[in-house]
Amino acid sequence: MLVVHKYGGTSVGDLDRIENVANRVAKAREAGDNIVVVVSAMSGETNKLIGYADHFTSTPAKKEMDMLLSSGERVTAALLSIALQSKGFDAVAMSGRQAGIVTDNAHTYARIESIDPTAMNSAIEAGNIVVVAGFQGINKDGSVTTLGRGGSDLSAVALAGALGADQCEIYSDVDGIYTTDPRIEPNAKKLETISYDEMLELSSLGAKVLQNRSVELAKKLKVKLYAKSSFSDDIGTLITEESENMEEVLVAGVVLDKNQARVTLRGVSDRPGIAAEIFTKLANENINVDMIIQNMGTDGSTNLGFTVPQSEHENAKELMATFDHDIEGMDFDEHVCKVSVVGVGMKSHSGVAATAFTVLADANINIQMISTSEIKVSMVIDEKYGELAIRALHEAYELDK
Amino acid sequence: MLVVHKYGGTSVGDLDRIENVANRVAKAREAGDNIVVVVSAMSGETNKLIGYADHFTSTPAKKEMDMLLSSGERVTAALLSIALQSKGFDAVAMSGRQAGIVTDNAHTYARIESIDPTAMNSAIEAGNIVVVAGFQGINKDGSVTTLGRGGSDLSAVALAGALGADQCEIYSDVDGIYTTDPRIEPNAKKLETISYDEMLELSSLGAKVLQNRSVELAKKLKVKLYAKSSFSDDIGTLITEESENMEEVLVAGVVLDKNQARVTLRGVSDRPGIAAEIFTKLANENINVDMIIQNMGTDGSTNLGFTVPQSEHENAKELMATFDHDIEGMDFDEHVCKVSVVGVGMKSHSGVAATAFTVLADANINIQMISTSEIKVSMVIDEKYGELAIRALHEAYELDK
Repeated sequence: MLVVHKYGGTSVGDLDRIENVANRVAKAREAGDNIVVVVSAMSGETNKLIGYADHFTSTPAKKEMDMLLSSGERVTAALLSIALQSKGFDAVAMSGRQAGIVTDNAHTYARIESIDPTAMNSAIEAGNIVVVAGFQGINKDGSVTTLGRGGSDLSAVALAGALGADQCEIYSDVDGIYTTDPRIEPNAKKLETISYDEMLELSSLGAKVLQNRSVELAKKLKVKLYAKSSFSDDIGTLITEESENMEEVLVAGVVLDKNQARVTLRGVSDRPGIAAEIFTKLANENINVDMIIQNMGTDGSTNLGFTVPQSEHENAKELMATFDHDIEGMDFDEHVCKVSVVGVGMKSHSGVAATAFTVLADANINIQMISTSEIKVSMVIDEKYGELAIRALHEAYELDK
Repeated sequence: MLVVHKYGGTSVGDLDRIENVANRVAKAREAGDNIVVVVSAMSGETNKLIGYADHFTSTPAKKEMDMLLSSGERVTAALLSIALQSKGFDAVAMSGRQAGIVTDNAHTYARIESIDPTAMNSAIEAGNIVVVAGFQGINKDGSVTTLGRGGSDLSAVALAGALGADQCEIYSDVDGIYTTDPRIEPNAKKLETISYDEMLELSSLGAKVLQNRSVELAKKLKVKLYAKSSFSDDIGTLITEESENMEEVLVAGVVLDKNQARVTLRGVSDRPGIAAEIFTKLANENINVDMIIQNMGTDGSTNLGFTVPQSEHENAKELMATFDHDIEGMDFDEHVCKVSVVGVGMKSHSGVAATAFTVLADANINIQMISTSEIKVSMVIDEKYGELAIRALHEAYELDK
């Protein structure tokens, strides 16, 4: 079996932890697997280097930042390779370039364009554990590029795809994907399996285990992903293609996102293009809009509601003031949160949303906004009821069973 | 004018010093020169990384060490480039690979085999200051290699040769080459010019300003080298081809090497090959032999003397004991030093050696061993007279004038 492991910054945070990772990789190797390991920079390294650049300018050239930041992963790759060799294993460290990763020219958030796995395959055939510096590649000009935040996950998935690996194991300090945040609901259960789409919804809703781009890529390349802990031997959670089996489970998980502020615009004038104008202005100011709700008032005018991250609430408020000729009344609330119910089972089962509304009503929680997708129901409620709502929904969908 | 600058670890030791280097490079650029800058790792970085590897094994694979250690120079190159850009200059950072440096496969002490300056030339033509990570290249397989201790000097000289640069300026914390160590003789004078050969003798004799391999390469490629300080505006010392002008100067400098221990073997048996056997055994034990003197005793047996570094004195002693059947008597002295007089003028002027012997005799200093080359006279004396001898010789050759 050919397996790609990926260890994040916390898992390789110091020399003892790199030793621990070496032991884990060694064990898997001894069990007979061929292994490619992708590593992040030691935790703190990347921020240290960013701090260095910040000494000179707050707007360093992205090309130079890529050369600067990519060095952290190279150090870890070399050290892990040395650690494995010291235990008697054949191992070889490779930079992104040596692993054959070619990206586009978008420095600091490059996209992988192609991977030539020849060098990796030769090294594997020669009996080596291949240790690859994550987060990086080169563009067609030969300049070093980086893949953006969480880019090592992306490296791992892309390499797994290019190598035709049997699975890709993403190791971090959490041991899998849970039905909800165990800090909120102690009865949260770890999921054995979850579909790519469910994971994408959970991830974008605030579950920070896996970077969204890497789940999307895994889905595209049909890479079997495992979310595992580098500090335990737990089996973790498998993220894979949707199966009929999965649809039997109504709901995979419920998530709380506290970083939400609500904007409601009443009596928006009915001239064409006004909504487009509002959201273009928000986009130009780099204010990320999450949920958007629109409905007609009885008098033909429109009510428009949307949510933004709390940090961008004040900016949104200022920007909306410039529309006061077109809007009768505005209402802002930064003390809201979003609770979401996710599950591919919703596709074939009705009543999931109705259950959610009933549960919140029974708990006397007022729902301010609702938005749904094929596999998700999201509700904006008063911030102070967030945890209560999560616990009530978790119980109602029997996620603790 | 196209000029290569090289800044060592002390000169880029922290962010303020990198800023200082950026200011110097900027000034030279504003004066109209095209500039390629070669940088070392920030001082302490390389030793930190070696310490990391040492955590796992005392014998890490050299290939992995190269990947590990080469990261330090990349960080400095990126930071200096960012610092220059922040001052409004066009600058681009390059790794050894991007600068076109191809080496042989001897990891950790690779030799540069070729340099393709195309990318550097394009960047220069586009108006950029090019900042190259020193100490590194790639081999034909595409693996990162490093050039050994002081390798950044070598990078700078090799790049200057490949680019046809007008001169190569090596910046460090000393402002040039002196007639002798100013800590021993306060009247030591900085030399304006010195020949490659004189520099090579001075360098191998203990003057640590320039790495020997880089002076050899400069001689081979006819690169005009300047030894300059990164902390002053002093003109420094030019190291260049020998000119007739230089031969008018009898002696360029005098040097003290305190890291010497003397071994004298009396009555070495006259069986053929005994000397070869002794020095082979020393070489096999990695004991570096410096001076070797041999002369015949009156009875046909041979007296053999040589010097080794003081740290290897005990090992040499043990090793010689294995020859006690072949040697009548042995004498070891670790309290010796070597004083040397260097100058291309010796080629055309007689009496330089005689002057040296007379000066030491007048000071009642006994000469234990003598060795000469075309441009050098070296004498082994009692350690405690080292500084005295240097001062007396410095005065006798009028080096303070």
